[in-house]
Amino acid sequence: KQIILLPGDGVGKEIMESAKLVLNTVASEFGHSFTFHQHAIGGDAIDQAGSPLPEDTIKACQNGDAILLGAVGGKKWDSLPAHMRPEKGLLGIRKTLGLFANLRPVKGFTPLLHASPLKEDVIKGSDILIIRELTGGLYFGKPSERREGGNVVVDTLHYQREEMERIIDKAFQSARLRNNHLTSVDKANVLESSRMWREIVEDKSKDYPDVTVEHLLVDAAAMKLVTKPNSFDVIVTENLFGDILSDEASVLTGSLGMLPSASIRSDGVGLYEPVHGSAPDIAGKGIANPLGMILSAAMMLRHSFGLEEEAAEIEEAVHSSLDQGYHTPDLHIKGGKQVGTKEMTELVVENLT
Amino acid sequence: KQIILLPGDGVGKEIMESAKLVLNTVASEFGHSFTFHQHAIGGDAIDQAGSPLPEDTIKACQNGDAILLGAVGGKKWDSLPAHMRPEKGLLGIRKTLGLFANLRPVKGFTPLLHASPLKEDVIKGSDILIIRELTGGLYFGKPSERREGGNVVVDTLHYQREEMERIIDKAFQSARLRNNHLTSVDKANVLESSRMWREIVEDKSKDYPDVTVEHLLVDAAAMKLVTKPNSFDVIVTENLFGDILSDEASVLTGSLGMLPSASIRSDGVGLYEPVHGSAPDIAGKGIANPLGMILSAAMMLRHSFGLEEEAAEIEEAVHSSLDQGYHTPDLHIKGGKQVGTKEMTELVVENLT
Ligand SMILES: CC(C)[C@H](C(=O)O)[C@@H](O)C(=O)O
Ligand SMILES: CC(C)[C@H](C(=O)O)[C@@H](O)C(=O)O
Repeated sequence: KQIILLPGDGVGKEIMESAKLVLNTVASEFGHSFTFHQHAIGGDAIDQAGSPLPEDTIKACQNGDAILLGAVGGKKWDSLPAHMRPEKGLLGIRKTLGLFANLRPVKGFTPLLHASPLKEDVIKGSDILIIRELTGGLYFGKPSERREGGNVVVDTLHYQREEMERIIDKAFQSARLRNNHLTSVDKANVLESSRMWREIVEDKSKDYPDVTVEHLLVDAAAMKLVTKPNSFDVIVTENLFGDILSDEASVLTGSLGMLPSASIRSDGVGLYEPVHGSAPDIAGKGIANPLGMILSAAMMLRHSFGLEEEAAEIEEAVHSSLDQGYHTPDLHIKGGKQVGTKEMTELVVENLT
Repeated sequence: KQIILLPGDGVGKEIMESAKLVLNTVASEFGHSFTFHQHAIGGDAIDQAGSPLPEDTIKACQNGDAILLGAVGGKKWDSLPAHMRPEKGLLGIRKTLGLFANLRPVKGFTPLLHASPLKEDVIKGSDILIIRELTGGLYFGKPSERREGGNVVVDTLHYQREEMERIIDKAFQSARLRNNHLTSVDKANVLESSRMWREIVEDKSKDYPDVTVEHLLVDAAAMKLVTKPNSFDVIVTENLFGDILSDEASVLTGSLGMLPSASIRSDGVGLYEPVHGSAPDIAGKGIANPLGMILSAAMMLRHSFGLEEEAAEIEEAVHSSLDQGYHTPDLHIKGGKQVGTKEMTELVVENLT
């Protein structure tokens, strides 16, 4: 398997080393062979090659079986013009590869739950999979421009029926693998695109009679994530709503540094990255939490390579390390022991072998 | 002063009676004269007049000094076509009257804070004013339509420079009346409209050197509202982002039924409504919480009539009632006493006199 590594900016490089080590361990334990190809993206690529998404990075990704991404962005590149911003690299790779389904699992880990901003009885038992449409909607629709000498501005929320259908299908299928409950989020009382979305969900629901469907307006969903996070199973929504809601959900458990994500397409090719950002303030200090990246590598094994057992082993090794009380400085475990990126990674490797 | 009453649907009628009683009390205490004119809106207007926003309601609102709205919507009208939905009445009145600034204060009341989904040390001290642009953006932009035989759909996020300028000015002015801190929320790393928004905020900030400005991406804002709600003072953002974030913020204190809102324009004309919805399940039972509506009436006195002292008296009377332990069934006060809509209203009136 050809794995493309895009460490990117900030802590990206450090945590990518962790993922490589864990994957190499899995490879030798289970007799697989993973080949790694490292390329530049984001601010790093701007500095090296003058573009947030250089041609050879695109080519490598097109030829790879899966992609691991660290993080992109940082103050350093914030004042560059829009087309030269690190985020363009990320948006570009998603769009170019057609990675339309963003999977964002949110699940608390018992030893860490006390750090949740929510009361324990509110967050307890929460286990949500947010599925965000990732290559359509307001982020990519044209026109997106100033008009009338800068007196008017428009962005366009654009969807093709087929773009909605495939993500909604993916969501129903995912619900089947979990607790058969799907919450579709839209703003159907105002937006035409949401009305079409809701119709398609209703239509598709006939093909998945075993899955219970609920519609929720995006404003109501933003409320319910805080008040009753444990009432959700799978949530599906369009790009912008998914951006906001998945980030809102990511802080509920109090351990953002642990959360992985996947951006995939139908044939299994996917890009995997931790939810946390590039964290320039702690970059290079050896204290970044590698677990979100390691759990993203586990998602890669599951979703791109079909290696369910291997994925589960990594997840178990991560949980064991926490259960043993080890944590990086971004987390806190009562009576636990604080370690750096390398030690945390080695603990996971030990628990794997 | 001519006050237009639009009770609307569900619990709207009951709580409107409460607001009237409180306003009449204030009128006689302070020697003011308020005249009330009641009209239909929403589902109620659909049933009575075949339209969610009948002509005579529009006319009355255009001639009034301020408007009080109960709530609109309910399952009963959910399957009507888009242009005949109760929400269209609300959107229509905002747009027709040009009520571009939606003010949503979020502040906890000490005796109720224990009902917050957040830990007490997270929510304590939170006092946020969210200012949402209300008549532009994705909700009103054209085209908003299906294309290519239903295979494509678009909505349009449309803003005029002037629409952004006036709401941003309003936000800076509001920050001056509070703690001089303004958080502007956008998605400037992706949307052209957000880049223009951010430029205008930067420009305007020169006119308000005493106000500290911070920019936050909407996804980051959705996170920070949960993790550090007490770090905000005034938040300003465009229509859709404001819809989502203000509703997210409304559940943080655990007493949604208490929250008022104002939708105003520059000359002081405004529409005031509680944040909670029509709550059809408890309508007619005499148990709806009237305090959100009563506090909305107080906002009306302040923002539309310049009656600061009267507004503050109402707010104090509401707080005293809670401090005395009285609450409707949607709230809970340890060792307190549960009462219905009427008793709660009478308690406020007693505390006023
Ligand atoms: C960097 C940005 C464009 C991106 C997005 O909003 O899609 C990020 O917020 C994310 O959620 O992955
Ligand atoms: C009813 C609906 C159109 C409305 C909106 O989103 O503006 C409501 O959610 C609100 O926030 O007042």
